[in-house]
Amino acid sequence: LVSQPLLDRLAAAVGVGQLLTAAADTAPYLTDWRGRYRGAALAVVRPASAGEVAAVLRACHEAAVPVVPQGGNTGLVGGATPGADGRAVVVSLARLSRIRDLDVANGTLTAEAGCTLAAVRAAAAAAGRLFPLSLAAEGSCTIGGNLATNAGGVQVLRYGNARALCLGIEVVLPDGRLWNGLRGLRKDNSGLDLKQLFIGAEGTLGIITAAVLRLVALPSARATAWLRVPSVAAAVDLLGRLQQRFPERVDSYELISQATLALTVAQVPGCSDPLPASTSDWIVLIELADGGDERQLAEALQSVLAEALADGLLVDAAVAASESQRRAFWHLRESAPEAEKRAGFSIKHDIALPLSAIADFVEVTSAQLAREYPGSRLVCFGHLGDGNLHYNLSHPDPDFLDRQDEVNRRVFSAVSARGGSIAAEHGVGQLRRLQLPAYRSETELALMRSVKQALDPRGLMNPGKLYPPAGGGA
Amino acid sequence: LVSQPLLDRLAAAVGVGQLLTAAADTAPYLTDWRGRYRGAALAVVRPASAGEVAAVLRACHEAAVPVVPQGGNTGLVGGATPGADGRAVVVSLARLSRIRDLDVANGTLTAEAGCTLAAVRAAAAAAGRLFPLSLAAEGSCTIGGNLATNAGGVQVLRYGNARALCLGIEVVLPDGRLWNGLRGLRKDNSGLDLKQLFIGAEGTLGIITAAVLRLVALPSARATAWLRVPSVAAAVDLLGRLQQRFPERVDSYELISQATLALTVAQVPGCSDPLPASTSDWIVLIELADGGDERQLAEALQSVLAEALADGLLVDAAVAASESQRRAFWHLRESAPEAEKRAGFSIKHDIALPLSAIADFVEVTSAQLAREYPGSRLVCFGHLGDGNLHYNLSHPDPDFLDRQDEVNRRVFSAVSARGGSIAAEHGVGQLRRLQLPAYRSETELALMRSVKQALDPRGLMNPGKLYPPAGGGA
Repeated sequence: LVSQPLLDRLAAAVGVGQLLTAAADTAPYLTDWRGRYRGAALAVVRPASAGEVAAVLRACHEAAVPVVPQGGNTGLVGGATPGADGRAVVVSLARLSRIRDLDVANGTLTAEAGCTLAAVRAAAAAAGRLFPLSLAAEGSCTIGGNLATNAGGVQVLRYGNARALCLGIEVVLPDGRLWNGLRGLRKDNSGLDLKQLFIGAEGTLGIITAAVLRLVALPSARATAWLRVPSVAAAVDLLGRLQQRFPERVDSYELISQATLALTVAQVPGCSDPLPASTSDWIVLIELADGGDERQLAEALQSVLAEALADGLLVDAAVAASESQRRAFWHLRESAPEAEKRAGFSIKHDIALPLSAIADFVEVTSAQLAREYPGSRLVCFGHLGDGNLHYNLSHPDPDFLDRQDEVNRRVFSAVSARGGSIAAEHGVGQLRRLQLPAYRSETELALMRSVKQALDPRGLMNPGKLYPPAGGGA
Repeated sequence: LVSQPLLDRLAAAVGVGQLLTAAADTAPYLTDWRGRYRGAALAVVRPASAGEVAAVLRACHEAAVPVVPQGGNTGLVGGATPGADGRAVVVSLARLSRIRDLDVANGTLTAEAGCTLAAVRAAAAAAGRLFPLSLAAEGSCTIGGNLATNAGGVQVLRYGNARALCLGIEVVLPDGRLWNGLRGLRKDNSGLDLKQLFIGAEGTLGIITAAVLRLVALPSARATAWLRVPSVAAAVDLLGRLQQRFPERVDSYELISQATLALTVAQVPGCSDPLPASTSDWIVLIELADGGDERQLAEALQSVLAEALADGLLVDAAVAASESQRRAFWHLRESAPEAEKRAGFSIKHDIALPLSAIADFVEVTSAQLAREYPGSRLVCFGHLGDGNLHYNLSHPDPDFLDRQDEVNRRVFSAVSARGGSIAAEHGVGQLRRLQLPAYRSETELALMRSVKQALDPRGLMNPGKLYPPAGGGA
């Protein structure tokens, strides 16, 4: 076999038991968790340290064999699944799972790439601090993947994306060199901020092996409310008021369409509408968190909501009176994808828009889609506070999925015309790669390729992801 | 003259009146405001639009003539001053001073590079919003320079550095191509986040011509206190408590040593100690800001301070009772550099450390410096909340400055041993360029050079800044 010398080197690097080649062993690494992408690989290796990752990448580099990094394999765009040609080696970071350091006074935690997000959050909580990245997959997704995809989630509004929560990283470069950039500093302008290159690069420039993460105070008070609003525009206005009164304390501001809520209540056991007597087309789930007293926070929120009600920005509101009620509100929001899955076949979009454009986008585009695709149902929910919507068109007939390219084009044109993004928090991966040139300038694509060429001149890191083939551009 | 064709092209690009070549006209652009650096240039050009900047860079690129971008020329490290060889063209961005857009609902403002920070803050305030970058030079420094240097200042603790306040940029690349990356989105993972490359690159990769800036709510309440603390360690502990009680609302947490305060009171007219009867080696100036009621905020702060006093974290405190008292506290803090200038000759350091290491650093290093340099006085003040100190050694004898390299080495070794940075908020420029290799790995320097080579292969952008000559590395 032409690859035997490489396999021998890999086995020597990680131990023979951590080099997987049998189909039964490699299968879980060759497909994504939703089963949308399937690939093949020369082997899967499971290094246990940054040094082992370096040895693996050195070997692959010398053999000119592509490398596909994989964390918790929870991505939604095929970014961690190898291509079909079977030429690549999949590098699983799962065994790099140590928390290397927790510095409470500095508010930092140093985690290896394979730590799950839940493990990092738990370690921070045990020290009385919060690591404020929060998303549905947190039990399985890993910090390395979170950073490689610049993950978002439900607290971006307050704390920013994964990028904003990272002070330093350790990276193995495509040729196997190890860069230790594990600094835990709030201010550092001693040269280019190289970590920014690797965060959000989807494993195409190197493999992040560890990171210094920023912790914040663990809130002592929380106030959660389920709101009926008359329109998306009213929801945007209300957000402005809440941020004025509670600057930097609105953690989450989630939008749910009435159609999505109805679907969720119908499809997912244990879900019920907290305001069944009240109707409107839009629901907002809001959460505030703060230090100090919880009752005071709830009262202050009530008073802002009462004003909003009087001013017509609000139709009705329920403030969670207990932790179980709070969880019930969140369960409703988090069950939307499950309900959608049960009810039909969806063409999905993870889009971002300026907040000032989002109401117009929703109104115009939803009417257009309803006209063009009779029998379809719009499933719209997401992180309104970040301008980030999951804007999906669902249909009971599976043949509807054949119209994906056409539906994508309609939605993305409307997004692009309003200065939005076709890939907000899920990234590009394989899913959006070929669509990118229609919405990004040739100059921007050329810049991306220059950076890729500079850091990975042999093009071995995660090929077939993120960068569209050369040529094109809007 | 060999450069006449280029000068003709530049005149055609910007208009003959905006091409300066006479010594009297160019002089202000050839030195920094403190007069520490002096350079020479072929010409100074003053384009009025991104298109004109593009034409200038295209012409310089084709003539292989270096370019030095310059904003408000308020830098402290010689980053905007051309070299002595006189080969470069200085490109002043001062005339790109339009605010292109203000989108209140989206919380964004689009400013051209030459807008002063004060003008941006004023435009935001007029719309009832805050642009939360705040630093001493704000009347003169420009947004382009703020972003090119990833400026810090007195509100980084809460709002982050300039990088965190920028959602999109427009850049002219070294060959004159214009990249429009002016997106105003909170979430965007549609490819590499290219703006991150140019922010903090000190004009070595291209010229930022405009930016989409993030606005926040304008606080309705402010609480400011002047604190005497027993030690730097106590100050760090107290910060943790305040952040626990007031998460995301501690705007500023400034440290001043007693020696610095004494110097300031002695040297700067109108400065007096707010707590004259109280003594300790360290002072902290703290400011909270919030929505809601100002008296409530002050009372909540008082109650945390009372507890801290009982627990020995605090010696004494004065909470500002009026806006004029608040300004007096800030005037004291901001007069420290002026007092230092009047009192002697200083060897300065703009350093960052993990908060957990800062008390030990100050104690050990200060004792060492006092031993080694009798007659010197340590002037230590800065943004403790960010781990960022201005840690300067002052002496009445000008000959003391001859020992600069040696003092730098002592301080930087102590910083580096504790995981710190030798260039926190002022950047590298000419001042720290040659010192960088001792504190950064060869891999890190090589990565920086790869990026530079990829974006500016002819090496024309701001030469002699930021990147140390090849070879070396810790």
